[in-house]
Amino acid sequence: MKLTADPSVISLAGGMPGSECFPVDQIRAITEDILASGRAARTLQYGVTTGYNSTREAVRGYIKDIGVDTESIENILIVSGGQQGLDLMCKAFLNKGDVVLVEDPTYLAFLQIVAGYEAVPVGVRSNPDGLDIGDLEAKIKRYKPKLLYVVPNFSNPTGKTYTAQNRQKIAETTAKYGVVIIEDDPYGRLRYEGEDVAPLYTFCGGNCVYVSSFSKVISPGIRLGFCTGPKEIIRKLEIGKQGSDVHSSHMSQLIAEQFITRGLFPTHLNYIKSVYRAKKDVMVAALDKYMPAKFKYEKAQGGLFIWGGFDEAAGIDTVELFPRAVEHKVAYVYGNVFYADGSGRNMLRLNFSQPTCENLEKGVKALGGMFNSAAAYKA
Amino acid sequence: MKLTADPSVISLAGGMPGSECFPVDQIRAITEDILASGRAARTLQYGVTTGYNSTREAVRGYIKDIGVDTESIENILIVSGGQQGLDLMCKAFLNKGDVVLVEDPTYLAFLQIVAGYEAVPVGVRSNPDGLDIGDLEAKIKRYKPKLLYVVPNFSNPTGKTYTAQNRQKIAETTAKYGVVIIEDDPYGRLRYEGEDVAPLYTFCGGNCVYVSSFSKVISPGIRLGFCTGPKEIIRKLEIGKQGSDVHSSHMSQLIAEQFITRGLFPTHLNYIKSVYRAKKDVMVAALDKYMPAKFKYEKAQGGLFIWGGFDEAAGIDTVELFPRAVEHKVAYVYGNVFYADGSGRNMLRLNFSQPTCENLEKGVKALGGMFNSAAAYKA
Repeated sequence: MKLTADPSVISLAGGMPGSECFPVDQIRAITEDILASGRAARTLQYGVTTGYNSTREAVRGYIKDIGVDTESIENILIVSGGQQGLDLMCKAFLNKGDVVLVEDPTYLAFLQIVAGYEAVPVGVRSNPDGLDIGDLEAKIKRYKPKLLYVVPNFSNPTGKTYTAQNRQKIAETTAKYGVVIIEDDPYGRLRYEGEDVAPLYTFCGGNCVYVSSFSKVISPGIRLGFCTGPKEIIRKLEIGKQGSDVHSSHMSQLIAEQFITRGLFPTHLNYIKSVYRAKKDVMVAALDKYMPAKFKYEKAQGGLFIWGGFDEAAGIDTVELFPRAVEHKVAYVYGNVFYADGSGRNMLRLNFSQPTCENLEKGVKALGGMFNSAAAYKA
Repeated sequence: MKLTADPSVISLAGGMPGSECFPVDQIRAITEDILASGRAARTLQYGVTTGYNSTREAVRGYIKDIGVDTESIENILIVSGGQQGLDLMCKAFLNKGDVVLVEDPTYLAFLQIVAGYEAVPVGVRSNPDGLDIGDLEAKIKRYKPKLLYVVPNFSNPTGKTYTAQNRQKIAETTAKYGVVIIEDDPYGRLRYEGEDVAPLYTFCGGNCVYVSSFSKVISPGIRLGFCTGPKEIIRKLEIGKQGSDVHSSHMSQLIAEQFITRGLFPTHLNYIKSVYRAKKDVMVAALDKYMPAKFKYEKAQGGLFIWGGFDEAAGIDTVELFPRAVEHKVAYVYGNVFYADGSGRNMLRLNFSQPTCENLEKGVKALGGMFNSAAAYKA
């Protein structure tokens, strides 16, 4: 965030929505309607920790659309952004020294949350289909983890989506050993190509908590997300949230609720997907044009990121080269921060949602220049 | 909260602002101005964990007015309600088994937060001036506590305000033994009679974190508060907040900020104080009129609560009698929930901010009827 504040450096390091993608007019209309209505005082008053029932009901419909079918609103907890959902899961399940399995690589901030509870993240190997099931089972047996954390849709950082078969096997394997899954799905609605895969939650029988957020599809500044799962787990999360922030901002709850119930999502999602698809295409074209031939990357079908890197044999260290990239006026995130074991120094993550198309082209060009000169320097 | 949803029971059990006290029009004007301005996209985007610099600067001025003078905005962290400030302090300072000193009685939710960290609250005796300094020192020596938690202004539940002399002695005693203070001050601006006493923070030399909230003076539904203290502690709280909810709602931050910078507080505070003063007077008059002679209470000079009870010799048990009160269509909070050791079953807390004046009169009348019949029944 501090780097992105320097206007002369093009940041491909962020994970933020493009500022042209915020539905300002719709949010303005919703807040005005609420504050001009008889609901204003109730909106400004204290409320219950679970969130408004009407908001939970709206969320219930929103996720039913993607196959996450819940018995009642008691399966849903409104939280202050998806991150709070992850934190509450850790608070509810982890004690000092407990092991959490994660995909290697995985979401950086989740590793930080786990560290905050003095628990131990252990990486599970992955492959193009998703998790390596053999390694998953071996590590469950070896470490007896409390939780498995995965981002099956357009994973951060890799942009990868797990296949349905892989999800089925993850569900079976975790059920066999009684491991609870956190399915983190902030990006699932942002698919630009290919077919949707049903949430991992739908393959599971009560050992999965589905966590999602409105940050990438409405606005991160409103800090709103939700957790879905078995009532007894949701109740535990509610107790954790009660002590943490009592409840989430009512205005934020109503913005998300009204966005759903007024039917604003289909049009808005189509719009932001068209923006991000175009940006992704610009980045892909620039990578092909400017990066050294040895640079390999995944053509993400959705989400916000492109993940790429060099064979370890190439001897490129993205951590060491980072200051040189900044000299070239471009920033990325080096790969090792996403690995539970700190490996991945040959990899990097690039974001295409936030920069303008012009800056995507310029930034990748600068990056290519830097890596080409770095490769030349090595040789 | 569930009880207060039954409309036939008058709840004197809450701790909420009166719904006539929300500055709906001002908040409506602020949100409309922001969403119609060039600031809209930045408001809807991610931000830094500390809170907007402009909001921190506004808060810095807001607390300077009451003597809390800070070197810079780095002494201030914006949080999602005062409760999050308390939670972050516990997260930063407490490990399993650590002792936290609290006034007996103290804020119920704080005891719950402490329990969530598997730490142990120990009560310090109090007197009309504040804490019993001899008992404070004895318990510091005996328990080596990590933290002392106090609500020196219009304490919840007792409504009591610590004298300046008592604050000075608390500051000296905690400094002597290196105990960190959490000064929780949600009610300090709500004084209806008497003179303000400078915050405990102003008597301390770097071992006090001042936590406050906009819940009681603007709106609890926006979930906004702040922590003020030494930079190294604020930095620890920031790290805790980063993992917990990334940052607080931007719109909420700007509502509080603009409320300060537009100079709306003086007029608004005068208005809500006049409402609450009148309600408090109605409750006091009703208590004098309807309650048994043996009922003793404190005439709070501010805040939201009246605390009262019976001599233990009277044999009145407010926990046992609670269902009978509900039969009489009135609810209160029994005293024992505010004591670290579970004593206080002869006491109760009454709220006067939320009910209408009519319901305050009716509720206290019902309560008096119940206690009079209970006393008769006993005899």
